[in-house]
Amino acid sequence: VLHSFQASVMNFLNEVASRYPSAISLAAGRPANELFDKLDHQALSRTFLRYENHLAPELYKPSAGVCLFQYGRTAGMINELIARQISLDEGVVAAPERIIVTAGCQEGLALCLPELCPEPADVVMVCNPTYIGVSGAANATRVGIFTLPGDGVDLAEEIEKAVLQLQGESRRARALYLIPDFDNPTGRVIDLAQRHAILEACSKHRIVILEDNPYGMFRYEGSTVPPLAALDQEGSVIYLSTYSKTVSPALRVGAVTLPETLFGDKAARKGLFESIVQRKSFITVNTSQISQAIIGGLLLEQGGSLREWVRPTLEVYRRNRDAMLTTLGGVFTPYSNAISWNRPEGGFFLCMELPFSFDARAVTECAEKYGVIVMPMSFFAFDHSQNNRIRLAFSAVDAGAIEAAIAALGSYISRKTSSLGAR
Amino acid sequence: VLHSFQASVMNFLNEVASRYPSAISLAAGRPANELFDKLDHQALSRTFLRYENHLAPELYKPSAGVCLFQYGRTAGMINELIARQISLDEGVVAAPERIIVTAGCQEGLALCLPELCPEPADVVMVCNPTYIGVSGAANATRVGIFTLPGDGVDLAEEIEKAVLQLQGESRRARALYLIPDFDNPTGRVIDLAQRHAILEACSKHRIVILEDNPYGMFRYEGSTVPPLAALDQEGSVIYLSTYSKTVSPALRVGAVTLPETLFGDKAARKGLFESIVQRKSFITVNTSQISQAIIGGLLLEQGGSLREWVRPTLEVYRRNRDAMLTTLGGVFTPYSNAISWNRPEGGFFLCMELPFSFDARAVTECAEKYGVIVMPMSFFAFDHSQNNRIRLAFSAVDAGAIEAAIAALGSYISRKTSSLGAR
Repeated sequence: VLHSFQASVMNFLNEVASRYPSAISLAAGRPANELFDKLDHQALSRTFLRYENHLAPELYKPSAGVCLFQYGRTAGMINELIARQISLDEGVVAAPERIIVTAGCQEGLALCLPELCPEPADVVMVCNPTYIGVSGAANATRVGIFTLPGDGVDLAEEIEKAVLQLQGESRRARALYLIPDFDNPTGRVIDLAQRHAILEACSKHRIVILEDNPYGMFRYEGSTVPPLAALDQEGSVIYLSTYSKTVSPALRVGAVTLPETLFGDKAARKGLFESIVQRKSFITVNTSQISQAIIGGLLLEQGGSLREWVRPTLEVYRRNRDAMLTTLGGVFTPYSNAISWNRPEGGFFLCMELPFSFDARAVTECAEKYGVIVMPMSFFAFDHSQNNRIRLAFSAVDAGAIEAAIAALGSYISRKTSSLGAR
Repeated sequence: VLHSFQASVMNFLNEVASRYPSAISLAAGRPANELFDKLDHQALSRTFLRYENHLAPELYKPSAGVCLFQYGRTAGMINELIARQISLDEGVVAAPERIIVTAGCQEGLALCLPELCPEPADVVMVCNPTYIGVSGAANATRVGIFTLPGDGVDLAEEIEKAVLQLQGESRRARALYLIPDFDNPTGRVIDLAQRHAILEACSKHRIVILEDNPYGMFRYEGSTVPPLAALDQEGSVIYLSTYSKTVSPALRVGAVTLPETLFGDKAARKGLFESIVQRKSFITVNTSQISQAIIGGLLLEQGGSLREWVRPTLEVYRRNRDAMLTTLGGVFTPYSNAISWNRPEGGFFLCMELPFSFDARAVTECAEKYGVIVMPMSFFAFDHSQNNRIRLAFSAVDAGAIEAAIAALGSYISRKTSSLGAR
């Protein structure tokens, strides 16, 4: 019975959204519907056929041999195309035999966590705040969580401190979950020096990094920092990727890419690969071959990379982010000593600091009276440190709605701060 | 780290099949490729569009509102069509709000087992032998297993005995997994009187029955026995269904249908529903809406039932079963006092009893020297009781190959028994 906090948060937000359907939601971190402009029944058919034709004739014999509609390989079918895509687009050198195709990145998490943390004393380290899906997956698979302060700290140093503290408690850090690029929920990017320091600390303590990179393809300015998996020399990074933000979440295709060796040990990596595949065979058997063929066909059409495919959506996000930043500047400049926000160079979110606590009741009040839904950062937190912060998603709402929503949020905050000041 | 027996069995069989590619496999319990004769890229496109058009216009607005390519409802999208199909085809009265659409029946198992058995003392009861997927899912979710003798026994009586024994061990039976129709691996059908007795025993002890029914639609003769879920008056049956055998395993769509009440308690059922949905949100987020739309469109095309859709495949299976039974009769009649098999009225398998133990080495020997791969029943067992039995699948091989395979198996068995007799 999983009555986790994470789950009730999701329920609560869905409920608010359905109770106030006219409220503009800056809460949902989903892709813009413009991502799907090139997808319809014909695109599904075209890409599927493209992949089917790509299969060598000796492999594909209807009513015999391999068939796309039949049960398939548990580790996946389009592993080679995925290896090429993450190498071309994300700079992560991957090999098909180290990739497990999953039902989205979420399944990757649910498979890796219990394999990396099999003992009751084993824990996964996460930042505070962090993505709800990782704490949910850890709870669902009975894996313990240890939180690191996630913001404005030296993470490598925090890892060292955590390892010491855990040792004192007879527990052991086995994994670290991170979104180094445009983190959900904070939007922050970990810089190159920090990445190297984190890699060093983790390889020193044999902590496997689960690097989740859903937003890396969505940078609007500034220069790319290589993923941890691209910098990893020791075999300490498992790279989690997804096609939910680049093609469609409805296909449910993601991938787990293991390092060439696990801390120098190739047999250990192979063993981990087999364990994850075995676990997958008892959770989802294999990832839909129809979905895999559609992604595979699209990758073939696009010459292996999704950069061109996502370019129009990237422009939508950039426009939305700019609209949000401009409106925030206009609305909140009078409060600049009390209210602040970050300027993300990519991704779907930014994080705003308020001079008062913003809780579930505030969500409802904003939705009901001001027509705007935002996400309290406390929903992603393990303590009270995030109570004054909110997450604003600009990915799935158009620029006009963003302006209206931020203006509405401004009215709420202005009334709230003046009533606080009057007390 | 899940190094389960179940997983190594699957690996072993895949390995044997790839090492002896010309061997005929009677080991794989997969659907016949003829099931996919009506499926291709155009069928995918047609059914997807059919479902898309079915969605009310006010729900479906591209670039706004609900979109099939976007994230979707965790409990599923085509629940109403599924409710109708299992009611029409399988006689199980279901309501959409009691259905969770899953990534195949396997995910249904992996979600239900830990929710029904949350405490370390809780166990799921399974027959010995049983389907590998249930013991694998229990191991993967750290749920304890208690085995009941599965063959030729009074199951209701065994349940009573098991409850007593478990009480003595301070453990508790919370669930019972059963394939009442054409069981995998034995092929047996539980008769109506036994079904009523099992329901009574389970409701008396508040044991939830997980009724798995992948083969119910494939009866070749005799009359249908209603599923436990159709007979259940007390709210003790969770019905697991799948489209892997009726449409395509590559779509990965199945469903969990909860009873109207859980042992008379409607709130308890609602609570269980929410818990399962929450767990699903942290394992696969939701079931592919593309796959759901394809199944949904096909169900709309077919007027809600899949009876007509599967009829040609059913004829294939009937022909295959008859070929297997006829060849078995011809080849093994001289050994009829030492070798026996059942005559299944449906499903994909039959079970054969040999006068000697048939183990993994025998599998390899048969594959290498006789060109036939069969499944030792011990692979599905928790003890040595099944050592002399094998499972023969007739679903995915054509009649000619079945005849050749059984003849080859006959040669092996004849050589083996004569060498045993000569000792």
